[in-house]
Formats: sequence, structure tokens, C-alpha cells
Amino acid sequence: MSELLNAWLQDSMRWAEDSMRDAMEHLDLGPSDFAQALAYPTFAGGKRLRPCLVRLVCQELGGPDESAKAPAVAIEWVHTYSLVHDDLPCMDDDDLRRGKSTTHKVFGEATAVLVGDGLLTMAFEQLASLETSQALEMVGVLARAAGPAGMVGGQHLDLAAEKGGLDTCGVREIHRLKTAALIEAACELGALAAGASEGARQAVRRFGLALGLCFQAVDDCLDVTGDAVELGKTPGKDEAAGKATLVADLGLEGARQEAIQRAEEARDAALEAGFRSDGLALSLIDWLLARTN
Amino acid sequence: MSELLNAWLQDSMRWAEDSMRDAMEHLDLGPSDFAQALAYPTFAGGKRLRPCLVRLVCQELGGPDESAKAPAVAIEWVHTYSLVHDDLPCMDDDDLRRGKSTTHKVFGEATAVLVGDGLLTMAFEQLASLETSQALEMVGVLARAAGPAGMVGGQHLDLAAEKGGLDTCGVREIHRLKTAALIEAACELGALAAGASEGARQAVRRFGLALGLCFQAVDDCLDVTGDAVELGKTPGKDEAAGKATLVADLGLEGARQEAIQRAEEARDAALEAGFRSDGLALSLIDWLLARTN
Repeated sequence: MSELLNAWLQDSMRWAEDSMRDAMEHLDLGPSDFAQALAYPTFAGGKRLRPCLVRLVCQELGGPDESAKAPAVAIEWVHTYSLVHDDLPCMDDDDLRRGKSTTHKVFGEATAVLVGDGLLTMAFEQLASLETSQALEMVGVLARAAGPAGMVGGQHLDLAAEKGGLDTCGVREIHRLKTAALIEAACELGALAAGASEGARQAVRRFGLALGLCFQAVDDCLDVTGDAVELGKTPGKDEAAGKATLVADLGLEGARQEAIQRAEEARDAALEAGFRSDGLALSLIDWLLARTN
Repeated sequence: MSELLNAWLQDSMRWAEDSMRDAMEHLDLGPSDFAQALAYPTFAGGKRLRPCLVRLVCQELGGPDESAKAPAVAIEWVHTYSLVHDDLPCMDDDDLRRGKSTTHKVFGEATAVLVGDGLLTMAFEQLASLETSQALEMVGVLARAAGPAGMVGGQHLDLAAEKGGLDTCGVREIHRLKTAALIEAACELGALAAGASEGARQAVRRFGLALGLCFQAVDDCLDVTGDAVELGKTPGKDEAAGKATLVADLGLEGARQEAIQRAEEARDAALEAGFRSDGLALSLIDWLLARTN
């Protein structure tokens, strides 16, 4: 990874976490023990990819970080809520995430359900606090990406797939809804934050979608080839659970080829959106393709 | 109940359900079996109190029904999601609601979690589809009322109260957050839909809060005195579960007195908001106070 990208990612992780901390201090989080429960999964680590993408796209299109703050916080809360609900016993039943006990192990199942509900709701409260002309559009972009025609619908298909077989087409549909829709939304929120033109916004969406599909294809490969310590989770888990993955469908080499192809699509869209050809967005594509965790 | 109010409530229930059906036809609900699961709790009956209140306040303040439609749909989806999650085995563990199997009994726990998540997200998507200047404010009002400083925080306190004792002050706080916040928001959304002045909006909020507290006080009484067939649920359930109720705290007579006092506060606020003194809002207060289900 380039030194520049590495430094930028470190800085953006801090920026994302500081922004969430700041946002939580300015919201009424209700009963104090519930506020603590909301903070637990929010500050339990992670790459902060989605808020970084909001900031990255906003920067590439000439917008100030300040405009990217609220949508970055909102989308990371949506991502966090989805992990909390995903880990529930009735869903993926995970006791650990990134080496830490999951929310329901620490606070109980009922509180974990409510923490997820709370974070999802707070995401929209956060966008409503903006006083820009793009704020309402941001609400729509985030809701569509997170809802039944996006992430939640993808989770549903993913659970259904564990019960029966799915072809490659089905796997790609799950990836598009479950993962790529929110990554695409992160990029589109960055474009909206920068006040981008409709043309740039369209290209940014293509960039985000391709990046999201690349990300998930790499994830599927890492489940087979990854190292437990580096991954922070047990490799082979998807396979054991009978999850629909690209590797199960196309083999490891086929899935790798697909990741490379998505990365190329992302590169084309990035240039079309007007991102710098030697800028961070293009380095980020290479980094996501080569990542080991 | 007055003939006029009865007819208006029947008509408004139909209006609310038609509006939700219409909204669902215009949204992408994702995978078709998931769309069916989303429709199940949405059309499983209920008084439709919250959308009726959005319409009522909008009408009392001279706004058209058309403006009340999207917020009415949004708030009923939020209410519906909260019931779906509330009924989960890890929460209240209910198999029946209004005489019908609960969502998790029909579709499984995982789908019920996702259906709740989906409906909550769709509520904000619905508001984002509006093209009025009040739309973003509506997002904020709904999110605050549904989030940690509102409904979700109230649910958390309610669960916590089952484990330990709470005084009257605690019970009132739970009622305010868990029930009254969303009823208050329904009224405020109606005022926003009508484009009401800030002064009227403040009075409408006081009306909604008092009405919500009255509603919950009556609910607590009905849990003791109600008839199973009329209620559509087993009376004594709250008591058996050790729930924090006004009756447990003040006795039946004390809880009834509190309901009457809240109704009077609602009446005062209604007149201050400019509602007609012989209009539907005032009849509705009497109806809520006298209701048996």
C-alpha cells in the first residue's frame, strides 16, 4: 500500500471515529445505560470503509470534509446496526466480532435488538440535522440502500440461500444488495456532500457499485485463503455455514478473476467521475483488491 | 362515541390502509417473498391511531389529506416495526397479536428481525419521497420520537423495569418515551403537513403528549379490567410479567384519575392549537378515555 494512502486511511479512521463521538455528544441518547450500549458496537473497531468513502469522494470532487461528516456518521451507524442484528442468535449467531464479544453477548439479546434499532434511527436523525439542500436526498439514498431493495433484502436472500442452493447469478444479486448497495450509497453521499453534478453522481454510483462488488469478491476469497489472526475471524466459516459465495460457485481462481474485473470497472468509473488518475481513490481500489483482512 | 367520530375513524382507517398499500406499490420492496413478509404485519389490523392523528391534526389546521399521507404511512410503519420486534422471543415473546400469529411465528425469527428493520428504513424512504419544505423536518421529528430518546429508549426502560422495581416517576418516564413520544410525533407531523405556525405546532405537541399519556394510562387500566375478547389479548399480562404500570403503582382508581387529568390537559392544548371546540379532536379525546379495547 502506498505511504500516502496508508496515512490518509489512518487519518480518516480517526476522523470517522471523532465524528461519531462528536455526533453522539450532540444527540439525546436516552437512558444512560442504553447510551453506553449504543456506544459499544460503535467503537468496537473496524476499517471504517464506508465513512472513509464518503470523505474520499467528497474530497475528490472538491467538497470540504465538514460536508461529509454527517453522512459519514449516518452510514457507519447503519453498517454498525446491521452487524449487531447480523450477529444475533437467530441470525448468524456470532459470539465474537473483530476479537471482541458481540453486543448481545455483552448486553443480552433484547438490548442488542434495540441497539440496532436505535443506531438505524439515529442515522436518519443525524441527516435531518443538516441544513443543506442535499440533506433530504441523502435520506433517500441511505434509506434505499439500507432497505428491502438493498442491504436488508440482501440479508434476507443470504439467509434463504443457506437453506437451498443458489447459482452464480443468485450470489451476485446477494452481493449487490447485501454489501455493494451500501458502499455505492457511501460514494453517492460523498458526491452529494460535494454538491456534484448529476453526471459525476452517476459515475460515482458506478464506481461505488463496482468497488462494493470487488470488496465482496475479495471477502469470499479471504474466507478460503485468509489467516485467522489477520482476518480477526475464523476462515472457512462461510463455507461451513453453506453460505452462497463466489468461491463455492466459480472456484478460487474464478472469484479472483471476478474481483480483478470489478476493480477495473471501478477504475474506469473513477476516471469518468473526474477523480485524479494518481489520487487516493485509485490507490484505494488497488488496496481493496490486495487486502488480507 | 359520536356517530360523526365513528364514521370518521372508519374512513380514516381505510385511508391509512389504502395509503400504505399505495406506498408499498410505489416502493421497491426487494425479493418477492420478503415483500410478502413486509406486508404481513402491515395489514394485520389495528386501530391505526397514529396515521389517524396525522390526518386529524392536518385537517383541524386546514391542511389537505394529501399532505398527511406520507407521514401517516411512515409513522404507522414505525409503529408496526416496533410491534414486530417487541413480539420477538427475546423481547416480550408473544405468539399472538390481535388474534393473529405474530410475524416471527409465521416467517421465523430472523425474517421478523429483518422485516422490522425494513419497515423502519422504509418509513424514512417514504418521507424522503416528499418534495415539500417540511419533509426534512418530518424526518427529524420521526427519528427523535422513534429513537433512543423516544420509543426505543422507552422499550429499553420497560425491559429493565421487569427486572427491578420502579417508582411512579419511572413508570411515567417509560410511558412518555415508549408510547407518548410517537403519538406526540404523529400530531406534530400532522401540524407540519398542514404548514402550521410555530405557535400552533407547540400546542399540538402538548396535545399529542397529553393524549399519548392518557392513552397509556387507559391501557394500564384495561390490562386489569378489560375483556379478553374485546381487547384481543389476555388481560393481566402486564401484571403477570411484572411490567411497570400505573395501576401497580397508583392502584386502579389512581390510574383512572391520571387518565382523566391527561385528557383535560389534551383538551386545553387542543383549544390552544386552534382545533374546533365541537370538532373531531375533542371527540377523539373522550373516545380514547372511554375505550374498552
